[in-house]
Amino acid sequence: MTVLRSYVEGRWQAPDSGAPVYDAVTGDLVAEVSSDGVDFGAALAYGRDTGGSALRKLTFHQRAELVKEAGQLLRKHRDELYELSYRTGATLYDSKFDIDGGIGVLLSYASKAKRELPNDKVFVEGLPEQLGKEGEFLGQHLLTPRHGVAVQVNAFNFPVWGPLEKLAPALIAGVPSLIKPASQTGYLTALMVEIIIDAQVLPEGALQLVSGGAGDLLEHLTEQDLLSFTGSASTASRLRSHPNVVARSVRFNAEADSLNMSVLGPDATPGTPAFDRYVRQLVIEMTVKAGQKCTAIRRAFVPAALTESVAEAVREELAKVVVGNPADKATRMGALASLDQREEVRRSLKALEDAATVVFGDPEHVNVQGADAERGAFLSPILLRAHDTRRPELHEVEAFGPVSTLIGYDGTQDVIELAALGKGSLVGSIVTEDPAFARDVILGTAPWHGRILVLDDDAAPESTGHGSPLPMLVHGGPGRAGGGEEMGGMRGVFHHMQRTAIQASPRMLAAASGRWVKGAPRNLDDAHPFTKPLSRLRIGDTIHAGPRTVTLDDIAHFAEFTGDTFYAHTDEEAAAKNPFFGGRVAHGYLILSFAAGLFVKPEFGPVLANYGIDNLRFTTPLKPGDEMTVTLTCKQISPRAGDYGEVRWDAEVTNQDGAVVASYDVLTMVAKEWNA
Amino acid sequence: MTVLRSYVEGRWQAPDSGAPVYDAVTGDLVAEVSSDGVDFGAALAYGRDTGGSALRKLTFHQRAELVKEAGQLLRKHRDELYELSYRTGATLYDSKFDIDGGIGVLLSYASKAKRELPNDKVFVEGLPEQLGKEGEFLGQHLLTPRHGVAVQVNAFNFPVWGPLEKLAPALIAGVPSLIKPASQTGYLTALMVEIIIDAQVLPEGALQLVSGGAGDLLEHLTEQDLLSFTGSASTASRLRSHPNVVARSVRFNAEADSLNMSVLGPDATPGTPAFDRYVRQLVIEMTVKAGQKCTAIRRAFVPAALTESVAEAVREELAKVVVGNPADKATRMGALASLDQREEVRRSLKALEDAATVVFGDPEHVNVQGADAERGAFLSPILLRAHDTRRPELHEVEAFGPVSTLIGYDGTQDVIELAALGKGSLVGSIVTEDPAFARDVILGTAPWHGRILVLDDDAAPESTGHGSPLPMLVHGGPGRAGGGEEMGGMRGVFHHMQRTAIQASPRMLAAASGRWVKGAPRNLDDAHPFTKPLSRLRIGDTIHAGPRTVTLDDIAHFAEFTGDTFYAHTDEEAAAKNPFFGGRVAHGYLILSFAAGLFVKPEFGPVLANYGIDNLRFTTPLKPGDEMTVTLTCKQISPRAGDYGEVRWDAEVTNQDGAVVASYDVLTMVAKEWNA
Repeated sequence: MTVLRSYVEGRWQAPDSGAPVYDAVTGDLVAEVSSDGVDFGAALAYGRDTGGSALRKLTFHQRAELVKEAGQLLRKHRDELYELSYRTGATLYDSKFDIDGGIGVLLSYASKAKRELPNDKVFVEGLPEQLGKEGEFLGQHLLTPRHGVAVQVNAFNFPVWGPLEKLAPALIAGVPSLIKPASQTGYLTALMVEIIIDAQVLPEGALQLVSGGAGDLLEHLTEQDLLSFTGSASTASRLRSHPNVVARSVRFNAEADSLNMSVLGPDATPGTPAFDRYVRQLVIEMTVKAGQKCTAIRRAFVPAALTESVAEAVREELAKVVVGNPADKATRMGALASLDQREEVRRSLKALEDAATVVFGDPEHVNVQGADAERGAFLSPILLRAHDTRRPELHEVEAFGPVSTLIGYDGTQDVIELAALGKGSLVGSIVTEDPAFARDVILGTAPWHGRILVLDDDAAPESTGHGSPLPMLVHGGPGRAGGGEEMGGMRGVFHHMQRTAIQASPRMLAAASGRWVKGAPRNLDDAHPFTKPLSRLRIGDTIHAGPRTVTLDDIAHFAEFTGDTFYAHTDEEAAAKNPFFGGRVAHGYLILSFAAGLFVKPEFGPVLANYGIDNLRFTTPLKPGDEMTVTLTCKQISPRAGDYGEVRWDAEVTNQDGAVVASYDVLTMVAKEWNA
Repeated sequence: MTVLRSYVEGRWQAPDSGAPVYDAVTGDLVAEVSSDGVDFGAALAYGRDTGGSALRKLTFHQRAELVKEAGQLLRKHRDELYELSYRTGATLYDSKFDIDGGIGVLLSYASKAKRELPNDKVFVEGLPEQLGKEGEFLGQHLLTPRHGVAVQVNAFNFPVWGPLEKLAPALIAGVPSLIKPASQTGYLTALMVEIIIDAQVLPEGALQLVSGGAGDLLEHLTEQDLLSFTGSASTASRLRSHPNVVARSVRFNAEADSLNMSVLGPDATPGTPAFDRYVRQLVIEMTVKAGQKCTAIRRAFVPAALTESVAEAVREELAKVVVGNPADKATRMGALASLDQREEVRRSLKALEDAATVVFGDPEHVNVQGADAERGAFLSPILLRAHDTRRPELHEVEAFGPVSTLIGYDGTQDVIELAALGKGSLVGSIVTEDPAFARDVILGTAPWHGRILVLDDDAAPESTGHGSPLPMLVHGGPGRAGGGEEMGGMRGVFHHMQRTAIQASPRMLAAASGRWVKGAPRNLDDAHPFTKPLSRLRIGDTIHAGPRTVTLDDIAHFAEFTGDTFYAHTDEEAAAKNPFFGGRVAHGYLILSFAAGLFVKPEFGPVLANYGIDNLRFTTPLKPGDEMTVTLTCKQISPRAGDYGEVRWDAEVTNQDGAVVASYDVLTMVAKEWNA
């Protein structure tokens, strides 16, 4: 029998024997697992030194490209992963959640990072803050990669998605990862890691794997490392309060199972599409992955008067669910991950006994198709119905399997209070067509939730479902759910970086951030910056153009030509009454247009297109007879893959007194090379 | 003798006796302090129920107004606070850091919140994410106030600034606070709270004070509460790992003392202004508040060859420092906060004995002016000089008083490595005129720092100094410094709120967020929205205008009129070579101008000014002969104090095929009321 290997310090290794791991369906031995022989301190040091320094040499876009390649690689190996995944008890449908879901996170992060992050190694957050009157002392926040390892301690239920949703943001941030999967299903994680390592997609040291126990891993964490955990609240507490984690302020993130709610709106009475949708979603959440999802619906809140109708409809659907060998096409629900897990669920059901009645299923018996009901970890879906809706067990005891409880509520305020009894959840959903009800429940329950989904007629066809965290949205919830946040688009990347407030003069800030800021030196002595391709353009390159006098005729003509005959431009008497202008003024759009007329270089050149404007503010009205001057300065250069890059220009229009009339960023596409 | 009172559950209370607190200067008894009799569970419940619900009824702007009033009130009572502050050992200059600094945080937060947050009760973060192809399922992050209490456990060194820098962001977020000052100087905090409570500036329950020990406070924290701590790393660890804090994932933030560095650049040789600036800053940081600042410079990194020159210059300056009664004008440095603190500093100096030599001062003796050197907690400034620069004590032992160590470094890489030995700091500073050196040290040390200040000729006149955290910048650092973040402008407000990802159809998302999003219902049936004042305008109100055909003549005329004769608009042959256009196209500014011509209502009306544009993107070129249509929809309404409010409009220009030509936000000022 193979002992699962760990990949640490640049090599695969395994001891001679380990603890047995069994097939969830057949009870056969799958592998043995042990981390004996792993030198955790050395593995972390290797990650920091070898992986970290390699990743930090790359830009966000280069790292995103690696993440994309890893995703494409795993996609090619999907069938291999599906095949092994059956042994965890997962159906093909379940595996797609895990495997395709994980690949999806990689690809989504890769493309989102390229869109939202600069092609640079540091991230400049927010606008510069002027800290003194003269503008010679600025503050701005800079994010740099932590010089540590992102250690992941994962749950058994998502052996592929779990590690990948943590890996993607860490890699893009420039931080290497060490994955420690749960032993129960770690063989699938090991296969996934093997595929990536064998293909040498990532720099050496950027990805390590420990199969087996965590040993003294936590003892070796330092101030620059991160620790992320997914799993039970009790283990989360143990890790969070580990003396070394505490003493070194190791950045910690937990995502723990919680008692998630789904609310049926009072409008969604039997016979409505919303009612059917609620029932269908509940059954899906109970049966996908045999209910072994941190996000599954545990508390089904329905208007008290509808409880019986919902129970009836859910029973009817559950009766159709075929439980059996996950590899069979007809099977709708496979096995739990292990016999131990089944015992755990049965214990939780016992704890719920006094608070709720079983209205569907039998915890001790289930008809199983194509597999041995006793050797495999099979369990019937179980629907409970609460007696007293405020009993704490209902809101605190989680049966981590195909189990949900119907809880009747009495009005909006009641359901908001019931939701809070869960003490913090990953996700809640609301099925309604009534925006006022949705709004009240969202605002009333949001402080207890990391994510809330509203399912109505419009959203239903595209909905990704109650149970699915998405890479662009935060995953995690307060309190019971662990108090953490994962993913959330670039938020997850920034979690792996250190935010540092830089206070400096404009020239020093520009030098550190690689972005020009107001007050930093300008280069005016050279050729027009529009004649320079990216290879020659530098931040600070400037064109100063004008003045041009704006006449009353110009304004009148512009009004007539564009049709913008707003009184402030055309009617002196009316304009005099305007509290901001006190007389006729030039159109904002006229100012922009004339400014372009001043700074644009007409000839065919490397600046190919103006694709947008950001943060335009008109600050001083321009009156007839005023002179305008424009200063355009290269602020940020972001090369893209291919022949072009984005250049952001600072534009400032001033009048004859030096007052700022308008300030904005001009966005252009510029060729990397150009032969004039 | 008075026993300091606590303000909890809406009343002032105190037991009959408590532990003595002595005047730092005279050794006289100032007060007794004890929290006996405080019901911590009831106080927290009172805060949540009474304070929290009152604050949550207000908008961000209304809360900001309260914060401003509190700041103005305290400013009126400054002299009273200064007077009492002498007893903590602080000079008037020191007190200004503490008291004026704290007031400054309140005022800065108030004005910043009004500028950067909407006049609303929830904060919508980021743009909506389209989660499906059709745009009928969106995701967006909503921030709502936590329904808990922000508990502050503060340090003795900033009895006014410490509580206020935590209070301001909490209040603006809508979260009540409970302040627990350090007993040593809690009498000054109590006076500050008394001034605010007596004036009834804040809603009842929004501010509570516990004078004395924390008792079983932490046992009563729930999942919605927050705990913020400033002080020693050891206490931070104890609070962070408290079983109830851990079990309930109480949101925790720590700011601990750290061994902050200041780097002298190799260019800053003796005789340069930079050299003098470095010396002056070091002496200030050693002596202000008698060096009892978490941000004070403990490690003074200087080029090895300059160590003796720096030592000489610092000695010369320190020799001029008059230590004595802080109430005397001539006194430059007052007393430490207590005799215990002095003993603590002496112990730390002992621990540094083998690693560094005293080059100025005597830990056991100091000349004191106007006070009794033994009854008061006076200590000489102490300058140390390191032997072996890598000795761990130098980077780990903090003497929390007027103590710094000169450490010679050998090149940029060496100083970066030395900095990291501190294992995480609140702040570092770099004194140099060389942008390349500044950039290398910033990027090399940023992962270990929460804040880095660069002092050069430009920044020096406006610099707020190494030791001063500012409300708009994050305060806190990784690792040893506690791993937390405070303030940082609106980041500190959001820390007190729960981020929830909302997934919903556009109409449901708009209902929940109060902001119109693409795809949500539009109201087209009514009057032109520009005829409506805020009192009648609703999100979704829309004007749909056009089409207008854009002719080649229009383009040619616009080019000639504005001077923007860019070849893509004027030269068919050259334009054909452009990779994005492939032929002549209309100017982006022409499209904007014509769009305004279509949607503007010319008559005097409630829409008073267009003050800007955000997020403009040109997505499809508009060619000669194309038709353009514009749709303008009211997206967000932010009433201001006074007669106006800001209205953000979604603008979308499409061509005859329905392709989006340009999309942007138009920002306008609109009157609250209007009589046509």
